[in-house]
Amino acid sequence: MPKQIITDLNTRYTTKKYDANKRISDDDLAIIKEALRLSPSSINSQPWKFIIVASDEAKQRLHDTYANKHQFNQPHAKEASHTLLLAYNPYYTKEDHYRKVVDAEVSSGHLPSEMYDDFYNGAYTFAEANTDESGFNGHWTKAQVYIALGNIMHTLARLGIHSTPMEGVDPEMIAEQFKDELGGYVCEVALAMGYPLESEDYNYGKPKARLALEEVVTVI
Amino acid sequence: MPKQIITDLNTRYTTKKYDANKRISDDDLAIIKEALRLSPSSINSQPWKFIIVASDEAKQRLHDTYANKHQFNQPHAKEASHTLLLAYNPYYTKEDHYRKVVDAEVSSGHLPSEMYDDFYNGAYTFAEANTDESGFNGHWTKAQVYIALGNIMHTLARLGIHSTPMEGVDPEMIAEQFKDELGGYVCEVALAMGYPLESEDYNYGKPKARLALEEVVTVI
Repeated sequence: MPKQIITDLNTRYTTKKYDANKRISDDDLAIIKEALRLSPSSINSQPWKFIIVASDEAKQRLHDTYANKHQFNQPHAKEASHTLLLAYNPYYTKEDHYRKVVDAEVSSGHLPSEMYDDFYNGAYTFAEANTDESGFNGHWTKAQVYIALGNIMHTLARLGIHSTPMEGVDPEMIAEQFKDELGGYVCEVALAMGYPLESEDYNYGKPKARLALEEVVTVI
Repeated sequence: MPKQIITDLNTRYTTKKYDANKRISDDDLAIIKEALRLSPSSINSQPWKFIIVASDEAKQRLHDTYANKHQFNQPHAKEASHTLLLAYNPYYTKEDHYRKVVDAEVSSGHLPSEMYDDFYNGAYTFAEANTDESGFNGHWTKAQVYIALGNIMHTLARLGIHSTPMEGVDPEMIAEQFKDELGGYVCEVALAMGYPLESEDYNYGKPKARLALEEVVTVI
């Protein structure tokens, strides 16, 4: 199994052309959704919304967000099986957002109810340390979303589903097209998901181009 | 296998007490290092250094960084098998850093050499868009490090190794104690890794406390 981990990570790559006829199964989609939900985050804050673009109507909206920028990613909007929009809460608050988490800590049986206040107040100091005077803590919440991104890319590799992480999106257009779904959360990164059209995907089957181990990892 | 993904993610948790007598094997450590190296990042920037604290001498230095803050995490420094320091480059540059990546793109056989300049200049616009007038792009590079964090937490879950993600570190003290290894990179998050002392770990075996699926995932 350990070697399978490396095989999986070596096999995943950034797909550049999708086969529009292949669709992620409902079973796999259920795994993807649950894996997103189970992503870890600082103080279990879960300051995120994950929107999965699945229908033709939603794909058209996503397509339209590439009108001004990053048109090289536009084809994925309709050709990928699904696209995941990963959004962070730029103004995460204790009362409106963290309270729900601590409620879940207790209702799940994870946290003893007599610890509620200690946890609610104690853990939240991490959020406070990352919140500016305007209430903005989007650098911190965005970083948490990238944990979920790393987690879901690993998950997809295990499922044999390919993907395209895209900072090449237009956050303003996404905010406009997906206003109702985002509810004020900010999407600056998305992940197209599906199956490559191998014969037309110039990135398919290429060797990984990572820096040497000794450049990035030091054991002391 | 798909169900194993959910089992793995449900089994991982934030360890609060390590068994100081149990050590990650060399084989598993090799997987961890390679999985870190294979982590994806925007434009394959790899703007990171990963430092694995393994020796008693390095553990003592890590221990000492908890002198002023977050003392609840201090025991992990010596009791966990290893601690991973994840550091980002706050001033990632095209000439000093991205050039190495594009060199690896070509030498690995991933990128045709005639594409060198197109890739080097084209892809780097993503970094430029995230760089301020002082050259700081640490919000962007830090986010990439959190992809690696999500990837490695998933990897550890597969290996049956437990861990403790810690924003509860003292970046200033770490910068001082690990000055030589960091070379100006910034560590604001670390990951203790090892095996729990189950009988003394209040977090062990508890149910997950995540928000409900419909709170965080929307399929449209």
